[in-house]
Amino acid sequence: MGIAEHVTEKAKSAKAASYMLAALSTGEKNRALEAAAGLLDKNRKSIIEANIKDIEACREKGLKDSFIDRLAAGDKQIDTMIKSLRDVIALPDPAGEITGQWERPNGLKIRKMRVPLGVIGMIFESRPNVCVEASSLAIKSGNSLLLRGGSDSINSNISIIKIIKEAFRSAGLPEGAVELVEDTDRKGVEIMLGLKGYIDVIIPRGGKGLVDLIAEKSRIPVIYHDAGICHTYVDKAADIDMAVKVCVNAKAQRPSTCNAMETMLVHKDIAPEFLPKAEKVFVAAKVSLKADKESKVFIPSAQDAAEDDYRTEYNDYILNIKMVGSIEEALAHINTYGSRHSDAIITGDKKAAEKFVKEADSAACFVNASTRFHDGFEFGLGAEMGISNQKLHVRGPLALVGLTSEKYVVTGAGHIRE
Amino acid sequence: MGIAEHVTEKAKSAKAASYMLAALSTGEKNRALEAAAGLLDKNRKSIIEANIKDIEACREKGLKDSFIDRLAAGDKQIDTMIKSLRDVIALPDPAGEITGQWERPNGLKIRKMRVPLGVIGMIFESRPNVCVEASSLAIKSGNSLLLRGGSDSINSNISIIKIIKEAFRSAGLPEGAVELVEDTDRKGVEIMLGLKGYIDVIIPRGGKGLVDLIAEKSRIPVIYHDAGICHTYVDKAADIDMAVKVCVNAKAQRPSTCNAMETMLVHKDIAPEFLPKAEKVFVAAKVSLKADKESKVFIPSAQDAAEDDYRTEYNDYILNIKMVGSIEEALAHINTYGSRHSDAIITGDKKAAEKFVKEADSAACFVNASTRFHDGFEFGLGAEMGISNQKLHVRGPLALVGLTSEKYVVTGAGHIRE
Repeated sequence: MGIAEHVTEKAKSAKAASYMLAALSTGEKNRALEAAAGLLDKNRKSIIEANIKDIEACREKGLKDSFIDRLAAGDKQIDTMIKSLRDVIALPDPAGEITGQWERPNGLKIRKMRVPLGVIGMIFESRPNVCVEASSLAIKSGNSLLLRGGSDSINSNISIIKIIKEAFRSAGLPEGAVELVEDTDRKGVEIMLGLKGYIDVIIPRGGKGLVDLIAEKSRIPVIYHDAGICHTYVDKAADIDMAVKVCVNAKAQRPSTCNAMETMLVHKDIAPEFLPKAEKVFVAAKVSLKADKESKVFIPSAQDAAEDDYRTEYNDYILNIKMVGSIEEALAHINTYGSRHSDAIITGDKKAAEKFVKEADSAACFVNASTRFHDGFEFGLGAEMGISNQKLHVRGPLALVGLTSEKYVVTGAGHIRE
Repeated sequence: MGIAEHVTEKAKSAKAASYMLAALSTGEKNRALEAAAGLLDKNRKSIIEANIKDIEACREKGLKDSFIDRLAAGDKQIDTMIKSLRDVIALPDPAGEITGQWERPNGLKIRKMRVPLGVIGMIFESRPNVCVEASSLAIKSGNSLLLRGGSDSINSNISIIKIIKEAFRSAGLPEGAVELVEDTDRKGVEIMLGLKGYIDVIIPRGGKGLVDLIAEKSRIPVIYHDAGICHTYVDKAADIDMAVKVCVNAKAQRPSTCNAMETMLVHKDIAPEFLPKAEKVFVAAKVSLKADKESKVFIPSAQDAAEDDYRTEYNDYILNIKMVGSIEEALAHINTYGSRHSDAIITGDKKAAEKFVKEADSAACFVNASTRFHDGFEFGLGAEMGISNQKLHVRGPLALVGLTSEKYVVTGAGHIRE
């Protein structure tokens, strides 16, 4: 069977299952997830064996240790997978929720009801844990799932999905509830992106190359988890000690994450006092500083920041610093160079804070808090598939509710339109 | 200036304005809309003159009367435009609304706030009234608007937008609040679809050709107003008189609309009694019937329905009729042949109704009511840009709320992540 037939068959199977999943009760879905947790625990050996095959193949290819670390599925990682399933069991089920209801003067009753999206097509890197996390969120929200993972973790993925499918089958779920593209031919991704009749939404999880490919080729709506070029603006009315503490946290607590700060904007009136204090703490945290001409006056040790630096997601211990003359200039910079992800203001001025959160075009705006809090767990939403920085459908953490849509249910008593 | 420069310049202007619009109060936006209503009234003559030019050009080209009817902008149509502006003034402003708030155990305050999408790119047929309707909805929700209308109404569009721009300017709105592509070169559409950095969402309003072009070419997220292949399922537990009345209304009250029924599905147990009664009323309403073999037994006058008929949006006095053995079969037909738009069940059985509204994959499901009610006004949502039958972002009437998205606003007191 060719790659096109293989992918199409899996997608058809997922589509057929999606209608049955939409009709399941919360209890039925939770029992399936619990069955998966139990079977993953019982079958650790087969997962670990498959994972060792993948790891050995990666070593032979000379892939980096950091890459191999991410695809490891040992006992510790399996524990995390099992925990993630049980965490999702504990979350409320969004499907079927009535989010609004009203009656029209003619007596028609109108309700808005949350329903699953249908089939989620997920394209992800070589990280086997995504198989479990995506399955749990998809099933809990009543969607079926078609997975296409990175080829370097194919054996681990096949092993995990085989176990999950067996668990779901035993719990009475339809066969296509979760499907995995098992052919590693790269064309499989493009074929998925064209299957508009069978896949309702594409969720990519991966680097810029993958996201760009999908943006170009997908005929199916996409929920993007794009770059995180995040800013903190230190306003003239900022508490300086707070500003230093929050900025260092936003940059250096875990620089590899998408919600870490990449550029710090500083109001000119506070710069002379703030920047030397901040410099000390950043240097102690091993952060390399790149500053514009105006800021450099107060941080002589910094390198020069170039125009392109402001468009760069470092994901590293590097920070751009730029002086601004006003909150307007800070907002203009953020809306021009940012990625609409996570942006913060540090200020004691309520009016400035209000202006900032209204005008910064970001999925999440922070006032006197670190951008690092932009996360489904930190927001109290539970597990997530990533952080969306697109504007349609869902902004911010893509948690269970983001995997549903709202439809109208209209009840009459033989109502006709005049 | 070439078409690419022309379109890009307009889009840049709209983008710059969008940040200012996001900061406006409801009062400021309403005053601008009222100013537009006033100036349209004052400048009727120039609109009508421009419109006559368009109509004469269409007549020379030999275009159909029905086409020319739709692009007419005489006194009556201008009255409607003015009324539509005032209707939107009366609607609540969605921008800035707090749709949820909670506090985390660490004291972080989290709010979800509705904000405008930014720049709406609207591509529409030769219908000048769309200029006014789209402007009012865009501005009221705090978005700027880039319009690209059908070339046959270009003079009318230029005249109307010139007046609206003058009104908005006088009310203090930024220059780019509304922009019109004035070059009728067809490449303009494709150029718009690539301007990802300047346009936040594309809304097409037009026939299948336009929608398909946009689906293929757009790099920008789209809110589709797609085909309406709508069904009514007459369940075995239906009240027969109600079923006849509702079905005839769904088909024949205004067949040219997207929410008119195209296929009627009838349970086999009720068919012998229902179909002959329905036939009489449909024939009296001048509806041509196409039936499957099983239904034809009870409606001998009907033509044969072919497989392709079930995928056809007639927008005309033609109806497919198909017999089904169960509600499951009806749902399978709807989810296979339908366009996820408006689908109804006629039944006295509450369980059947519940099953139907949960499993029919439609933007709006109707119980004992005509599909013709699928409309922003009928739902009490006010004016709309169309009816979305996609699943992401908005399903059903695309009213003011659908032109916004929700972002997170997180307030701390120097909170850092441990």
